[in-house]
Order: sequence, then C-alpha cells, then structure tokens
Amino acid sequence: MGATPAWPPRSTPRLFVDEPLAPGARRIEGPQAHYLLSVMRAKPGDPVRLFDDATGEWLATVAATAKRDLTLDVTERLAPREPVPDLWLCFAPLKKGPIDWLAEKACELGAARLVPVVTRRTVVETPKLDRLRATMIEAAEQCGRTALPELAETVKLPALLRDWPADRALFFADELGGLPAAEAMRTHPGPAAILIGPEGGFDDAERESIRALPAAVGIDLGPRILRAETAAAAALAIWMAGAGDWR
Amino acid sequence: MGATPAWPPRSTPRLFVDEPLAPGARRIEGPQAHYLLSVMRAKPGDPVRLFDDATGEWLATVAATAKRDLTLDVTERLAPREPVPDLWLCFAPLKKGPIDWLAEKACELGAARLVPVVTRRTVVETPKLDRLRATMIEAAEQCGRTALPELAETVKLPALLRDWPADRALFFADELGGLPAAEAMRTHPGPAAILIGPEGGFDDAERESIRALPAAVGIDLGPRILRAETAAAAALAIWMAGAGDWR
Repeated sequence: MGATPAWPPRSTPRLFVDEPLAPGARRIEGPQAHYLLSVMRAKPGDPVRLFDDATGEWLATVAATAKRDLTLDVTERLAPREPVPDLWLCFAPLKKGPIDWLAEKACELGAARLVPVVTRRTVVETPKLDRLRATMIEAAEQCGRTALPELAETVKLPALLRDWPADRALFFADELGGLPAAEAMRTHPGPAAILIGPEGGFDDAERESIRALPAAVGIDLGPRILRAETAAAAALAIWMAGAGDWR
Repeated sequence: MGATPAWPPRSTPRLFVDEPLAPGARRIEGPQAHYLLSVMRAKPGDPVRLFDDATGEWLATVAATAKRDLTLDVTERLAPREPVPDLWLCFAPLKKGPIDWLAEKACELGAARLVPVVTRRTVVETPKLDRLRATMIEAAEQCGRTALPELAETVKLPALLRDWPADRALFFADELGGLPAAEAMRTHPGPAAILIGPEGGFDDAERESIRALPAAVGIDLGPRILRAETAAAAALAIWMAGAGDWR
C-alpha cells in the first residue's frame, strides 16, 4: 500500500505491454483497447501507465481513439524495472480457484518465480500455465509491479530436488515440525524458495527426499492446518517481512 | 499443517456443534446430517470429530443412521478448547468473494475476533454477518480450531477508535510509511489488532484520527500495492509468526 504520486492520478489505467517501451507512439489493440475504450472510457489527453517487464514503467497519453483501437503517446519513464526479491514459490498445482488465487497473491506479495511441482498426491498434474500467467499479469498491473513473476514449466518433485541450486534455501512446511518460520527465514538470508505440498501433504518418501537436500529448511507455520494456498501466502509474507523488501 | 494422530484418521469428518458436548448420545440433523450421510457416506462405527467452541474437541462414533438424521455416541475428549492468540482483525467490509475469502483465511491463520469497520470509502456498509460466520465455521472445521473466531457487530471507524482499549496495539498499514511490519509486531507484544482499510484506503482525516490513537502503530507492508484481503492475510501471518503462536 505504498504512497502514490499526485500525477498520474491513482485511478490511471495501468497496463502491461509485451514489447519494450520507448518514447513515441504506441498502438493499443485487442482486449487492452477494449478495456481502455469501453471500461475506462479513455479520451484523448487521458493518462495511461505502461510497463513492459524490461525497461520499467512509462507515462503515456491517449493521442487518438478509434472504434477498436487507440494510439498512445509514450512520454516519460516513471520508474526503472524494479529489483525483485530473490524468492521462488514452488507449489503443487491446486484446482481452479485456489490456484488462480495463489498466482494473484504470489504476484502481489512479490515472488520472483513460480514453479508448479507435481508430487504423488497432486490432484492437478497439468496446470493451465497460460491462465496463471494472465492472472499474474492482471495482479502486476494492479499492485504496481514493473517486473512480472517468472512462471516456470511444471516439474516433478524428484527432478526439482535433483537439480536444486545449492545456494538457494528451500523452506518447506514440515508436518513433523520445523523451525519457527520467522526465525528460519531471518537466519537464512540470500536466495530462497518456499515449497508447498498438495492438500494431502507430501508422502513419507517425498518428505525424506526433501529433508535430505542440504538446502532444505523445515519450517513451522503454527498449530492450525492451513490450506495449501494459505500456507503459501503466509510463508511469502513472513519471508518478505523478515528477509525480503518489506524491511 | 500440524502432525495428525493415527486415530481418528485424517479423513475423519470434523463438525462444529452449537451446544456444549459431553459423553453420550448426540443426534445430528439438517445439513450436517446430510453431509455425514450423503457426502461422507457415514456408517455405524465410523468416527466423527466434534467441537463446540466451549469444552473442546471430542471423538464420537456413528451409532445409528436414518434417512435424514443420525445418532452419534460421543466418547472421549480429544483436546480441550485451545487458547487463542489475542489478535483482532478490524477490516472494512469487502464485496462478496474477497470478504468470504478474508473470513476463511483469518480463521485459518488464527485470529481471535473479526470486527467489520465502516469507513468513508467503504463500499459494503452492511456485510452479511451470518454468511461470514458460516464461512468461519467451515474454516474452523477444516483447520482444526476448537475455538471459533468471534464476529463482532459492524461498527463505524470513529466509534471503533473512541472505544479503543488502551492496552491493545492497533497495527494499521500506513500509506505514508510506518515501521517494517515484522519489527513493529515483534516489538509490541501483548493484545493486538490489525486494521485494514477499504480498497480506496483511508481518507486523510481518517488516517489522522487513527494516528492520533496512542495505541496505533503504523506498519509498512512493502512497496507493492496490496489488495485489502492480501494485506490482511499478510499482516495476520506476520503477527502470528512474530508475536503469536507460530513461534
């Protein structure tokens, strides 16, 4: 909930565009044009904020509108692309609804990378990555991010662990007990990841294989049984507050 | 995600009942009977876990089933009513969807009391308290709570501040900057509350009146603009991890 500058106003539409931005004319078509013209009722002279996940965020002004597209005049760069805290979220795909919510919240809370991980008890083996990406883009437009979270290809747990980078702490909610989450995250600075299992939890062999990873750090998220998406959001927030950019 | 005992099995249905529990026969009717009979296919001899928000959690066994109701034999108390961390969540009511999600997550994360607060920019002035209570009961059944969060009557912000208990820290996301959330919560132990404004934020006069409260502590939830329900869940998790029962 950061402070917002007087100009452009808080209500200014904010859109992600998939090609690098630069000063000059930019044509907007398709759903984004529909959004600006029909939902936001954009008129010539109206401000629009654009970001491209590469050069940062830019101020643009509506130059001309047509029935199905409009032209923006990109003028001034408002901010460079942000530095993103180096936190990954590795999660067993959930069913539609919870997984969309998780992607939205992970983006808002500041995750750098999302990695869908298939485990033995995972119910959804092939998450719809396109929908997750669209959800994260919407969340980024809303929360002011100038960098999109990276969305990795779905991977099986054994492969994730086999190729795990030694220098990246892997925090996982250990049902058999772990360090208090805040303490564990404060005392393991540097690159990190949070691994969240499916609703049914990891099976014994999976838990052992995670524990066997030198980078693995079992954490305790309290006495209540958290839904997978709740555990993910809680762990992301605790990491951001203790080791990320909320300090 | 606490460890679960071998008996009753993890899959055992868990239900809140609105009258105090004691050993002996207990008749179950209505939606809960439908859930046990039609959804869980309960048969005589099957275990059921019951809690009453008063005496704790009990183990029961299905004694007899009929078409629309069943009789349980309440046998052994599995746990006393839990001590609940003394954290309130005061929040500007949100529209259906986000507010239900917020009630569910606040229960899972361990809030003791929810207080709907109407502010100048609040869009929903009369939240459906019955629906919120039902949502919290479902969340309590799922997350293993033996104590339900209390749901207060909706109050206007000036009344909330006027009657504020002096010994209860009031953490609020201050858009003009505050202490890092984890540090603020760690260094203000004791009874606490989190105050989350509407999507539009508090207006200047409201923010001044909150700041003027001696118990108020402005917190910083990072550089991204969080949705109200995201800010609430993040603040609840950070408090639980730093000052609650996740330590």
